[in-house]
Amino acid sequence: MIKVIGFYSTEFGEIWDKSLTALIADATLGALADAKIEKEKIDAVFFANMLSGVLENNLMLPARISEVLGTHKPVFRTEAACASGAIAFHLAKNWLMANPGKTALVVGAEKLTDYSPEEVTAGLAAAASGEEQAAGLTFPGLYAMMAQVYMQKYKYTEENLAYVSHKNHYHGTLNPKAHFRRPVTIDQVLKSAYVAYPLKVLDSSPISDGASAVIVTSDESLAKRSSHAVSVLASETATDSISLKGRTRLDGIEATQIAADLAFSAAKLGRGDIDVAEVHDSFSIAELFAMEDLGFWKKGSAGSQIRDLATMIGKGGKLTVNTSGGLKAGGHPVGATGVKQIGEIYLQLTNQADRRQLKKVKYGLTHNVGGSGGVAVVTILGT
Amino acid sequence: MIKVIGFYSTEFGEIWDKSLTALIADATLGALADAKIEKEKIDAVFFANMLSGVLENNLMLPARISEVLGTHKPVFRTEAACASGAIAFHLAKNWLMANPGKTALVVGAEKLTDYSPEEVTAGLAAAASGEEQAAGLTFPGLYAMMAQVYMQKYKYTEENLAYVSHKNHYHGTLNPKAHFRRPVTIDQVLKSAYVAYPLKVLDSSPISDGASAVIVTSDESLAKRSSHAVSVLASETATDSISLKGRTRLDGIEATQIAADLAFSAAKLGRGDIDVAEVHDSFSIAELFAMEDLGFWKKGSAGSQIRDLATMIGKGGKLTVNTSGGLKAGGHPVGATGVKQIGEIYLQLTNQADRRQLKKVKYGLTHNVGGSGGVAVVTILGT
Repeated sequence: MIKVIGFYSTEFGEIWDKSLTALIADATLGALADAKIEKEKIDAVFFANMLSGVLENNLMLPARISEVLGTHKPVFRTEAACASGAIAFHLAKNWLMANPGKTALVVGAEKLTDYSPEEVTAGLAAAASGEEQAAGLTFPGLYAMMAQVYMQKYKYTEENLAYVSHKNHYHGTLNPKAHFRRPVTIDQVLKSAYVAYPLKVLDSSPISDGASAVIVTSDESLAKRSSHAVSVLASETATDSISLKGRTRLDGIEATQIAADLAFSAAKLGRGDIDVAEVHDSFSIAELFAMEDLGFWKKGSAGSQIRDLATMIGKGGKLTVNTSGGLKAGGHPVGATGVKQIGEIYLQLTNQADRRQLKKVKYGLTHNVGGSGGVAVVTILGT
Repeated sequence: MIKVIGFYSTEFGEIWDKSLTALIADATLGALADAKIEKEKIDAVFFANMLSGVLENNLMLPARISEVLGTHKPVFRTEAACASGAIAFHLAKNWLMANPGKTALVVGAEKLTDYSPEEVTAGLAAAASGEEQAAGLTFPGLYAMMAQVYMQKYKYTEENLAYVSHKNHYHGTLNPKAHFRRPVTIDQVLKSAYVAYPLKVLDSSPISDGASAVIVTSDESLAKRSSHAVSVLASETATDSISLKGRTRLDGIEATQIAADLAFSAAKLGRGDIDVAEVHDSFSIAELFAMEDLGFWKKGSAGSQIRDLATMIGKGGKLTVNTSGGLKAGGHPVGATGVKQIGEIYLQLTNQADRRQLKKVKYGLTHNVGGSGGVAVVTILGT
């Protein structure tokens, strides 16, 4: 069984005094310290980043990470837009399955706030198809179109979406590393400026800097010595058309459904077994899609169910969602996001989540999406 | 044992009438046809590309490949500059080791000639460190500095380098898919214009478009049914500092030495067992480094040994090198290169290399380098 034995994340936010390499170094050294292992113990590194090439003409980061670690060991970089982090973790898990007795570092990082919002928005649009970019679509635009389909089909209003942001911003107040640590009311969300109708500023995750790292191992003796180890029960991924026009439906994300079915089957668990989940709430609508496509809530019901706030900390629901604040309040340094999601579940399952710690959590799930749904990754962890 | 059971490459060169996606589709469908399998048989795709983000703001290509294949299967993108192709193959091999009975497509592609040489040169420099880029260094400049160290240390002249281009251009005349299919004399190489002293135009690989794909499987029954299957005996990779200033030596590439030692050890073979090799001759000096660092020739002797042309087709040497024309004459569509190298060895080992077919080849090796030596990958294949 592959196990996670350490995690560290930098603060997410506008981190102007650290370069991408410095963020990678902070996350890497933090995770090694958390796992109480020396860097020599790392047999391979899986690295996730989306925009360093586009924004800073900075590729070949595997060799830069080799410098940070002072190692000649293999370093692999993967890119799947906003799902890069979970894909790196997925590849690490498979690499460890092929290489028993080894230990891998998975690190995701992104440095965005050195650039103008226009540059970053155009860069993020690289995860849309060329036709969509040529049509002037950005990511808020793509999710806004999907939100309209969903709201019209199931008769919801913008208020139904606003509960996602309200919940996740409350969770952000409990996470000292979250980009935003202040609560927002439903009214504040509804009164915030439109980005792309029906999505508003407070429906949208921010542009963040940050890096996160986890240590994963197939070395059973190392896992046994660890005071905090959780098992990787499943990591599954599915793809879909990059363009919305190629999808079979726009009121959800089919790649999530496929990856979730595969993951629950591999983990031999049911939806009702999951106690805590980090889902991909790049926009408020995306969390509603996630809850339905992961099979937690019936298709079309999320807009109504979210109003109960049963997935909020302290509300006593069986399943709590996005305790870190999610992408919305926690922040979204693209390459780091999928790794941080796994780290948050790791913290919850090992009772290290401080003020946002849930009681009696045995199974956790993460859900990371690339682009407007062209890639989805579902990971299930258990104690 | 993991086996390669199919290969296809587009022509390499200035392919103005095909988009990156069209090149990927051509290579993919060609490899499926060569392996005589349906696309539904592909369980995962490993994709290599360097510059689509930088040049065309085009990321998330996994979802684009999902469209090409009409599949929801996992697609992974890796980037390690010029070593992206061999890294994708390496990850596919490890994924297949973890997943018995499965089949993977490895596809590498690059579309460069739609952009100006200045744009492409600046893009390729993304594989140099930020400090090197800020100092005005491009890739010819980095290899030129290493060439100067080597030539001064071992007392060679530009003529010693020229033999590499002479040999590989001859091989290019035998490969209908090579970017350049005309011979060059030593004199022509020496009289060509300087790019960065001591490297000249005819010491340098070209800017090419192209795509290559191989089918790899851990499905033993599928491999048995194949009329042409070769075994993956080893695939090993090592990293080093991204900047030249961080290296322990500049008269060679240490990452190659480390990866080669690991690969020969894993394959349980000696240097003398290899009959054919595709090595990373991005510049003429790079093939001399490769021959020494892979352990075929003694350190410092390559400048002299290359003058015998024993590694040229038809010269009767035990080991023949870069029968495809290498990067120099074959072309260098960055993401495709490492995949094409494996394909060339596959063709030689299965007697499908037409006019450049060698006699009695049992073991072959590929050597793919990223950046100025920050990543090296060595793969050994056998019949």
